[in-house]
Amino acid sequence: MSWEENVRKVVPYTPGEQPKTTNVIKLNTNENPYPPSDAVWACLSSVHPQDLRLYPDPAATDLVHAIAEVYGVKDSETFAGVGSDDVLAMCFMTFFHGKKPILFPDITYSFYDVWADLMEIPYETVPLDEDFRICPGDYMKENGGIVFPNPNAPTGEKLGLDAIEKIIAGNPDSVVIVDEAYVDFGAQSALPLIHKYDNVIVTQTFSKSRSLAGVRIGYAFGPEKLIKYLNDVKYSFNSYTMNRLTIAMGAACVRDVETFRANCRKVMDTRAWVTEELRDLGFIIHESSSNFLFATHPRVDAGELFAWLKEKHIYVRYFNKPRINQYLRITIGTDEDMRTFCDTLKEYPGIGEDKV
Amino acid sequence: MSWEENVRKVVPYTPGEQPKTTNVIKLNTNENPYPPSDAVWACLSSVHPQDLRLYPDPAATDLVHAIAEVYGVKDSETFAGVGSDDVLAMCFMTFFHGKKPILFPDITYSFYDVWADLMEIPYETVPLDEDFRICPGDYMKENGGIVFPNPNAPTGEKLGLDAIEKIIAGNPDSVVIVDEAYVDFGAQSALPLIHKYDNVIVTQTFSKSRSLAGVRIGYAFGPEKLIKYLNDVKYSFNSYTMNRLTIAMGAACVRDVETFRANCRKVMDTRAWVTEELRDLGFIIHESSSNFLFATHPRVDAGELFAWLKEKHIYVRYFNKPRINQYLRITIGTDEDMRTFCDTLKEYPGIGEDKV
Repeated sequence: MSWEENVRKVVPYTPGEQPKTTNVIKLNTNENPYPPSDAVWACLSSVHPQDLRLYPDPAATDLVHAIAEVYGVKDSETFAGVGSDDVLAMCFMTFFHGKKPILFPDITYSFYDVWADLMEIPYETVPLDEDFRICPGDYMKENGGIVFPNPNAPTGEKLGLDAIEKIIAGNPDSVVIVDEAYVDFGAQSALPLIHKYDNVIVTQTFSKSRSLAGVRIGYAFGPEKLIKYLNDVKYSFNSYTMNRLTIAMGAACVRDVETFRANCRKVMDTRAWVTEELRDLGFIIHESSSNFLFATHPRVDAGELFAWLKEKHIYVRYFNKPRINQYLRITIGTDEDMRTFCDTLKEYPGIGEDKV
Repeated sequence: MSWEENVRKVVPYTPGEQPKTTNVIKLNTNENPYPPSDAVWACLSSVHPQDLRLYPDPAATDLVHAIAEVYGVKDSETFAGVGSDDVLAMCFMTFFHGKKPILFPDITYSFYDVWADLMEIPYETVPLDEDFRICPGDYMKENGGIVFPNPNAPTGEKLGLDAIEKIIAGNPDSVVIVDEAYVDFGAQSALPLIHKYDNVIVTQTFSKSRSLAGVRIGYAFGPEKLIKYLNDVKYSFNSYTMNRLTIAMGAACVRDVETFRANCRKVMDTRAWVTEELRDLGFIIHESSSNFLFATHPRVDAGELFAWLKEKHIYVRYFNKPRINQYLRITIGTDEDMRTFCDTLKEYPGIGEDKV
């Protein structure tokens, strides 16, 4: 016997690389290329340095209220956490505590199986179809819960609200979590369904469409009862997760709807021309409703291209996993960054030859 | 069958009240009455608003390195989290994953049993002796792990390093967590023991002695192997727990050793005269090595006094629990606050009559 036997041993999630240098074009972790609302920094003056000695409001009321107000729901239908990873971790802990396997797509956010392993939640992956699409009919089997992103990651493919409703309505005995990290770039939110079904949680984040990955804010909407259960678990884990500055900055940020919409629009406009240009270069690109593209090239090994781009100081994301190991996930950056990216690609042997 | 059966249902920890108004004397959550180092606010200018769009360093390297440097240990022996509650929650999840009950005192930080319940960790409480002291000999029985605060809360009593070492040495097959939230106010840290034993974790916080409760920073020291296991679990829960501002503020704060020492000294000086004065008023006070006093009065019902003080806008902490329901936990505030507190007490029927 040794204390080793009492240790929970896990294989952690590997986040995309955060290079220390600034002379790279960083298209690997789906950050927004535009700065957040000016209101974010300005609001810091509302926090007095000497107040930092006091605990923050454990309920993060100002932030929760601002989010609820902007989205037209009640505070009691809203939950806030340290990024949507924290929110999702709390959701897994709260709602996936049964004995039956939870379901999620085989190709999806690669943190789901990590959380399931960490919390010893049995799970089954449901294969996407040949075109990498989620098929609602595949989720009509016994399960202990369901989670999927919409749009899905890393494919960027969205699911229509009718399809999502089918999954929720078809699983009244499970909590269904719709992970909407990328929803603001072209998909429809399942938010209205929290008033129609008692078993749905919708999660979103400030890290993508609101340009605040560096501050760590995520949130969830759900029927009051589910949000209550979620808060009970959160308060059993850490009373004060959101610090004073984060609460103030998040509340200011969410209220600036104009900057948020303008930044999303710019990313979508850039996505449109980059998609077209990459297709011209011979890439096969999934129709993206997110702030990234999922691309493969019939004549190019994705792993090798990934490494070559890194040498050229362009970071994209490569997943060495079954079915997707010939794809790259490319975050949409500024027009300038994407121009450099496209031009650099043309130097790679085998790319763009169709055009010649 | 319903989704309700899959829900983890828990009774959450109740933190001390955070009143919305500012016209109270707040002696209920052990915050430091003095502002944090000026360096904390000044360092914000090192963070560029536009960088907030980028994820923070998942390893919080700058913060971890600053803490390690100040305490003279390696970065690889240091872990940082969102307050010591987050650090302790991660520790429970990582090291208390066996089948045998973990041990902690019957009178102690009231989050321990909440974490154990949340994570379904079996536990046994070990009674303090009649004088509310931890007896190392009581921890020499089969267990799946041990955790205790030093000084203990809410008693404020410290345990000597020899006694702590006895517990660690006597339990080579368990990880022993020494929760040193209050250690800087007069107890000795078990930090040196991480180089002598392979089974000890020491946790500390910026919330008390460093006046940064509002920013949420806690940390842990341990042998490299334990810190590696702890990081694996952290990275399996949330890659990025510490935001960009927190990392910068924490690193600046921990390096200002002078402010830290001066604030601790002031709190201890105030504690000395308040202890004396309360004893003169008939209170029985435990010898405190923390930034609070644990006090009972033979002629006064603690619950009633608690409520009465609240009406007078003085918040202290009352735990309606066996053995301690005739005690109040009183945070040490400024000299001015404590003067008002002591003077107010004199108005209460039954207090101070010995003196008359």
